[in-house]
Formats: sequence, structure tokens, C-alpha cells
Amino acid sequence: MSQEFDYIRWLRSRTTADPRVLVGPGDDCAVLAAPARPLLVTTDMLMDGTDFILAEVGPRRAGRKAMAANLSDIASMAGVPLAAVVSVALPPASRDLAEQLYLGLRDAADAFDVPIVGGDTNSWGGALAISVTAFGEATDRGAVLRSGAKPGDWVFVTGPLGGSIRGHHLDFTPRVREALLLHAAVELRAMCDISDGLAADLNHILEESRCGAVLFADAVPVSADAVELSRTTGKSPLQHALGDGEDFELVFTVSAADGEKLLRAPPVPGLAKVGECVESGLWLEVDGKREPLQPTGWVHQF
Amino acid sequence: MSQEFDYIRWLRSRTTADPRVLVGPGDDCAVLAAPARPLLVTTDMLMDGTDFILAEVGPRRAGRKAMAANLSDIASMAGVPLAAVVSVALPPASRDLAEQLYLGLRDAADAFDVPIVGGDTNSWGGALAISVTAFGEATDRGAVLRSGAKPGDWVFVTGPLGGSIRGHHLDFTPRVREALLLHAAVELRAMCDISDGLAADLNHILEESRCGAVLFADAVPVSADAVELSRTTGKSPLQHALGDGEDFELVFTVSAADGEKLLRAPPVPGLAKVGECVESGLWLEVDGKREPLQPTGWVHQF
Repeated sequence: MSQEFDYIRWLRSRTTADPRVLVGPGDDCAVLAAPARPLLVTTDMLMDGTDFILAEVGPRRAGRKAMAANLSDIASMAGVPLAAVVSVALPPASRDLAEQLYLGLRDAADAFDVPIVGGDTNSWGGALAISVTAFGEATDRGAVLRSGAKPGDWVFVTGPLGGSIRGHHLDFTPRVREALLLHAAVELRAMCDISDGLAADLNHILEESRCGAVLFADAVPVSADAVELSRTTGKSPLQHALGDGEDFELVFTVSAADGEKLLRAPPVPGLAKVGECVESGLWLEVDGKREPLQPTGWVHQF
Repeated sequence: MSQEFDYIRWLRSRTTADPRVLVGPGDDCAVLAAPARPLLVTTDMLMDGTDFILAEVGPRRAGRKAMAANLSDIASMAGVPLAAVVSVALPPASRDLAEQLYLGLRDAADAFDVPIVGGDTNSWGGALAISVTAFGEATDRGAVLRSGAKPGDWVFVTGPLGGSIRGHHLDFTPRVREALLLHAAVELRAMCDISDGLAADLNHILEESRCGAVLFADAVPVSADAVELSRTTGKSPLQHALGDGEDFELVFTVSAADGEKLLRAPPVPGLAKVGECVESGLWLEVDGKREPLQPTGWVHQF
């Protein structure tokens, strides 16, 4: 029998029964029980050389990142993850790579009880490309969009930022639980995960919400990696925190009243108030003075 | 503004309102209205050099094929397509390619009223890879699996087979409507789309159903392309029809009683009874004599 079908048989032998999954891998489609609430869908493709260096990180960490990045998008909506499918384009002669990749995908998926219900396994002459599509269900409070921020809202992040290239961009935990706990505690008005960088991702919220925001320079939590990285880059730790991206923390806005509530009794550790929404513009406040902040971050050119 | 966000803006300007889509492209996830029936999910990745030659076919036909191949999987379950998301890894400097690709994806999606609700657009140094994930809804009769065939069932296909490499593999119409009409007329017991080849795909049904089948050599509908191709390949038109694959017709089984009903009043054109299910094995009957048939077709080696 061929390697492709051997591999699919190997995958199926590792797929456990799940009441949400009516039909798992091995048919033309997976069949999932109808979700009761609106369905969230996100897809992210990660490629060797762009999102990870396969020769350096190995297939297991690459797989973990690919799954975790998608679950981070479900977290951005305060959704409950339901399932995922995975397509891969594998370099030649890579059965072991395929198995390690799958184990990495499962590392991240199992941590959130997410079944991998199907996929497509291909080989080609090119480098490894992994495409994950993840599904989730909105909670009863609804999906949190980017478009709900209002002037006067407080801006929070869920953890320290910057320097993720030192390893955090591979080994992060998507903030699925944090988003659900926060959304249960207060009304999250707008949310986004920090993949492009705090300034760029906050700016995504501002564009969709048609308002502005000021970030307080001394309130932005800077990671130890950002400090370490700044020793060699000539950039300040804060610049790294604002622009590096791939932190996979959440940035969100709430009303001032809800913000005070979060500061009084944080439902999750690591929360930091980093700014406030204003009528327009993106600003950085340093020593009481506001200066325009460029929402720079990673952007694909093509 | 960067090309990536320009492109996303261009996409969003082409996305029309749809009551099934609560949030379309531009947020972290798409949000779909909760489907009433079980959710079908399929994903297929197509790569330049493996599934199409970009330099020969151009991005629009490549995009059309990528979407149509996924909708063919929804058809295989007799599902109603709901939506799709698309991830792409683009070669450098390919804004025009990205637009043409999207128009091709839309060509196939629009034909079945399928909104493209999200995606991920990436550039890299490699060749074009397109990953589509499509969603559908089962009908009230349930999803048609591969596992329901029984000895005594009749085996049908929806159209002529073979020689798809001459162009049909790019320009086929996924049998979404045919599957729904057939499933409304009779009980489809097992179904699969013909992507690997009639023998291989029927064999997928037989493996899942734990039974066998005999194909009648003179009943297999052979396409004009298979005849044309056989002039130069040294293979018979029938061999092409049995093994070429990428026909994207459907192969399915029904009870003998339902089979007679289909022959008396075909609900769709092109139907052909090509065989019958037996206890075990895969057989080809030629001039009244049965010989073992190898379920050969395209298989990824890695």
C-alpha cells in the first residue's frame, strides 16, 4: 500500500471518538454535529522560511505553531474551539516529518480539546507549507469583533510583548481560556490577537471601530525577550514590544467602568491597561506628551 | 499602504452581503449563522506543478479548480455548500496573480452561491499553493458516507470518465446539484467523487463498506478525451476511464430496487450503471468473465 494511505491509516488510528465529530478523517468530508451558536471560522497558512525555519525548529514545533496560531484567532473572538482541519504540502521523502508535524499539531490541539477532523496530505518539490482551518462556536454573549471599540474605552493586553523571535513565537499558548474568562467577567467591546504587533493590531481595531487610541509608553508590558533583543538591535525594548508581533497575546477594549472592574479583580493573570480610546489617530504618550505612533508591523508584500 | 492590506480591501469590496454570513473577511474569524443540520467540512490543497501547471493554465483556471475540487467533496456527501475560506502562498510580486486567482475561485463559488468568507494571503519564495476549506450542510436525509454500500447494491457514475488531463480536470463542474437531485429521488447508500480514478475511488467505498464490487467493462462510460488520449498512450480508452482520475464525477451505490428506479426515470442526465456490489474483491467483467481489477490511481509519495 502507498505511503499516503499508510499515513492516513496511522492518523486515523490516533483519532479518538468525540461526540461532536459524527464522521472524522477518511471520508470526503468530516461531519460535525450542528453547533448551537454562530460558527467561527479562521484559516492561517504557515510556510517554511517565512513563519518558521524548519531546519532550525523541526516539524513538531512548526506543527504546534500552525495549530496554536489558528486557535489564537478563535480566542480573538472569545470563541470556544470546536475542531480543525489541516492541509500540508510536504517536501519529498518526509514520512517522519509528516508524523512529527501531526504530533505537534496535536500538542496544541489537545491542550484545548480540539479534534483534528480531516485534512489533505500532499507531497511536492517545494518547501513545507501548512494550512490549518479552525472552527469555534461563539458564546452566548456573542463573538467579539474588531469593530466595537468606542472613544473612552480602556485598552488592555493579556501579557508582556516583544522579542517573540527568541522563541515565544513558537511556544506560546493561545489565549483561549483567558478570552472566555474575560468575556464572562465583562463586556469585551473589541478584540484582536497580537500577531502583527501591538501598534498594528490595535490599529486594526481602530480602523474597524472608526476611532483612535493613545498608548501609555510606561504601561506597555515589555517582555524579558524584548529587553534581551534590544541589546543587539539598537531599538528600545518598548519599540520591540510595540512592533515585533507574534506575541499571540490579546489586545481588547472595554468601557472605563468595566476596565476599573478588571483592575480591581483581574479574572486572569498578566492583564495590563495600556491605553485609552480617543476620537481619532494612534498616539504614544511618553512623559505626558502625545506623539503620533506608526502602526508598523509585519506585512506580506506580493 | 501595503499590498497585503490593499489586496484585502480589494477583496472586501467584492464581497456581497449574505444572510448566512454574520461577519465576512477582515476580522480574526468569519462568523457564520449556526447551521441547522450537521456541518460538512472538507479541505484540499492544490500546488503549482502537482495539480496544475501555473505557467500553462494561468491563475484564474487554477483558482477555479481549487474551489471546484472542494465543492466536489461537498457533493460527495450530497451536501448543500455553505461557505469557503482560502489560504494562499503566493510567489513574489504577484498582485495580478492574486486577483486572477481570486476571480477564478469566485467563478466556481458563485456558480453554487458559495460566499468566500475569509482567508490568509501570504507571499514566499516558493511556488503557488492554494488551500481551500469548504463547508456544507447535510440534507434532512443525512450525509452520504463511503461506508454504506452492501452486496447486491448497484454501482452508478454520473458521467463519462478518463482523459481529464486534456482539460476537463480544470474545467469540470462539481456535481453538487446532481447529488442533491439523486439523494432526493432515492436513498444513496455510499458515494465518493472520482478524483483518484473510478477503480481507486470505488475501492475507497468498498474498503469503508467492507464489501466488494464488479465493474462491467462495456458499461463504463468512456469520455471522448479518453479515446483521444489512448491514440498516443498505448493504453485502452477503458484503462484511461478506470484509472486516470480527476473526472470529478460521482460514483455511488443504491439498492437494486432504487437502481431500477434510476434507470426508469433518471433525475439527472449522464447516469450510467457500471457495476454491482458483491461480497468481496474488486473485479472487472469482460465478455462475461471476471478478472481482478487493481485499484490504481494517483497517490502522493512522501
